Amino acid sequence: MRNLDRKAIETRLNELGQLLPAAPSPVGNYSASLTRGKVLYISGQLPLRNGQLQYCGALGESLTVNQGYEAAQLCALNALSQLLDATSLHSLEGLIRLDGFICATPDFTEHASVLDGASDLLQATLGQAGSHVRTVIGCNSLPGNACIEIALSAQLKGAPRSDYASL
Amino acid sequence: MRNLDRKAIETRLNELGQLLPAAPSPVGNYSASLTRGKVLYISGQLPLRNGQLQYCGALGESLTVNQGYEAAQLCALNALSQLLDATSLHSLEGLIRLDGFICATPDFTEHASVLDGASDLLQATLGQAGSHVRTVIGCNSLPGNACIEIALSAQLKGAPRSDYASL
Amino acid sequence: MRNLDRKAIETRLNELGQLLPAAPSPVGNYSASLTRGKVLYISGQLPLRNGQLQYCGALGESLTVNQGYEAAQLCALNALSQLLDATSLHSLEGLIRLDGFICATPDFTEHASVLDGASDLLQATLGQAGSHVRTVIGCNSLPGNACIEIALSAQLKGAPRSDYASL
Repeated sequence: MRNLDRKAIETRLNELGQLLPAAPSPVGNYSASLTRGKVLYISGQLPLRNGQLQYCGALGESLTVNQGYEAAQLCALNALSQLLDATSLHSLEGLIRLDGFICATPDFTEHASVLDGASDLLQATLGQAGSHVRTVIGCNSLPGNACIEIALSAQLKGAPRSDYASL
Repeated sequence: MRNLDRKAIETRLNELGQLLPAAPSPVGNYSASLTRGKVLYISGQLPLRNGQLQYCGALGESLTVNQGYEAAQLCALNALSQLLDATSLHSLEGLIRLDGFICATPDFTEHASVLDGASDLLQATLGQAGSHVRTVIGCNSLPGNACIEIALSAQLKGAPRSDYASL
Repeated sequence: MRNLDRKAIETRLNELGQLLPAAPSPVGNYSASLTRGKVLYISGQLPLRNGQLQYCGALGESLTVNQGYEAAQLCALNALSQLLDATSLHSLEGLIRLDGFICATPDFTEHASVLDGASDLLQATLGQAGSHVRTVIGCNSLPGNACIEIALSAQLKGAPRSDYASL
């Protein structure tokens, strides 16, 4: 099931001119993702490709809004890969919350346009299930000089195991 | 029901010298609010009034703590309006988490006093159901040069539809 | 039960050379912790010891990564104390999400190593139940000139009261 899902998402991404990366490993003592109750939580994802950070620096300084948009896409691709490692699309009710953290100068104002790189990709790939709320803020610095980090959570269908146990 | 709720909240706000604004539209490709399971999630709210950002700039620079407090109130009013658009007060078990992101200089220290503008208003308006946990941090920059952004979540009463389906 | 849990955690912490502090009171109009549904939410915790902020300043400037790691440990000890005030270990299914906010200069890159101070302590103390996802970002400033703030959530076992009511 998960392999089929991965294939379907890869096909959809190819139509969008994107490749699904392997899900990055955690860069510290934590889990890449975790399911608790009916919610799947994904740790902060950086714009990594083949283990290398892309688009380093700050928005409003060394990077354009367009580069930030592409970096947000890359974070979203990594988050999508984590999601597919953790669950099947059949089990996915829908995304919940996208947190966007953008490394930016004090006078930068276009955080929303940058994070749309992630929102657009998630909605184009997952359709109705890609709907989400979000926050976006400007940060002083991010791990490894990344220009963006995103966190994502998703609702899974059906009653959690602990509910089944109680019935 | 929702209209009655809106009326009741408006009356309470008028006693506090406040007006309930229309809920702002998203400024990107995401949902203003979303209910998943029994939780209502509200996207980041800015200090908007009639579509215009108020109190632009940074705390510790161009804005006083009192202006920051008022900006936090305005964010909370917008969050409250989103909440009333999404659910009835009858269905509200209570607020969950308030995230406060404050645009501030490196030497600013009074983040808690600023965010109390939101916490005070939510608790004065919703009473017992207004209790919440929170985080507050200082940011480099926020969308559109806003001085504050808040995100809010709330617990809804009763079993979610997916639980009913499984019984 | 909670006293026994506190004792067990204290013993484990002593083996790690740590003391469990009393849970700090909120520094504004909010709750230190809150249980909604099956999730326990803990408000942002600062590196407080006996009511005094420790390790003030910014990473990359006045503080070393090692000092940041110790500050993150202290935040985690306070979060653990809040958790033990709110629930029993018997009721704990496991941690969910750790949000790490680090006051850092624009050129700081080792956020992950700093937050490992919290992740390492939580996992060493709670074992399997200490697994969590996390985010970590660099902030411009934090309340009271703190160098780090963490927020934590945890999943509780069993069906929530509202589910029992519907059976």
